[in-house]
Amino acid sequence: MKEKIFEKSIVLFGKNGFTETSIQHIVEELGVTKGTFYYYFTSKEELLMEIHLRFINELLQSQKAIVEDELKSAKEKLHGIVYMLLKNIEGQGQSAKVFFREMQNLNEEHLQDIFKKRDQFRKQTQHVIEKGMEMGEFRQDINAEIITLAILGAANWGYHWYDPKGPLTELQISDIYLDFIINGIQA
Amino acid sequence: MKEKIFEKSIVLFGKNGFTETSIQHIVEELGVTKGTFYYYFTSKEELLMEIHLRFINELLQSQKAIVEDELKSAKEKLHGIVYMLLKNIEGQGQSAKVFFREMQNLNEEHLQDIFKKRDQFRKQTQHVIEKGMEMGEFRQDINAEIITLAILGAANWGYHWYDPKGPLTELQISDIYLDFIINGIQA
Repeated sequence: MKEKIFEKSIVLFGKNGFTETSIQHIVEELGVTKGTFYYYFTSKEELLMEIHLRFINELLQSQKAIVEDELKSAKEKLHGIVYMLLKNIEGQGQSAKVFFREMQNLNEEHLQDIFKKRDQFRKQTQHVIEKGMEMGEFRQDINAEIITLAILGAANWGYHWYDPKGPLTELQISDIYLDFIINGIQA
Repeated sequence: MKEKIFEKSIVLFGKNGFTETSIQHIVEELGVTKGTFYYYFTSKEELLMEIHLRFINELLQSQKAIVEDELKSAKEKLHGIVYMLLKNIEGQGQSAKVFFREMQNLNEEHLQDIFKKRDQFRKQTQHVIEKGMEMGEFRQDINAEIITLAILGAANWGYHWYDPKGPLTELQISDIYLDFIINGIQA
């Protein structure tokens, strides 16, 4: 039941927004009582935090597997991270929407926890670029911090436009992104 | 007074969200009556639409000046567009936040109008890249549509992280972005 509340809430928060969705609304959709909700969550905010935590923890875990793979070049690791983010939008589109849009509704302590994890994701990406610079795979004169933000921005922005039913798969888009990031567009 | 309602609403919507901000809240902050509000706007949604319209119209107008400048190369035009978007986040941070986050609260007809203008902005950017390919300034084998989305994503994502009080100016960040977009990061 906890899982059902979780999934239904993501759909409702994604569709109508966190503030506009009441606990009453969630339990009605599931045909259960408010008591059932409060058995699993102390408040709507706690539920929101669990959605956020699960979303970012899954991303951090997948990223860890990519960056720790000794057989991959820095370029391949970047490709893996971009692909993972786009793939995540396809599979977890509503969660991504709730994650980016409803973060403001977390309480201050929870928000700081999420920021810390988000920063960790960013720093691990930056570390891949720095390692690539160190190994001579990437140019020495680039600004790893700003380029990390540009790459994550380009990938995360996908949740505004990426249509899994569109003509290109996440893999094709990742390939185009990575070719562009690595080689630039200059003739 | 219309301008004051406009500005105060952007601050309140940015801080507390559109749904959480009532007309009562807005007029109280300004020390006027609800009648004053309704003299200028028929509803809170209409006010939100005006915020959206002004935001996107200003961007479209600035972009037009950039893309129609015959003296600029495609690279310089792209730089101009990225710089403009980052500069806009600095100057209009709250408007950008309201624009991206509260779009969902527009009614269907208004939403379609905004989508049309947003698409226009994207297509004009894509046109700069296609022109650069045509003129031999950019590679022939790139996917202009996806690269446009990547560039706009990287720039727009700035509203999640760009701090005007931070160590880098919008111009410095635009320079780093453009160097990266044009030349890639390969050693």
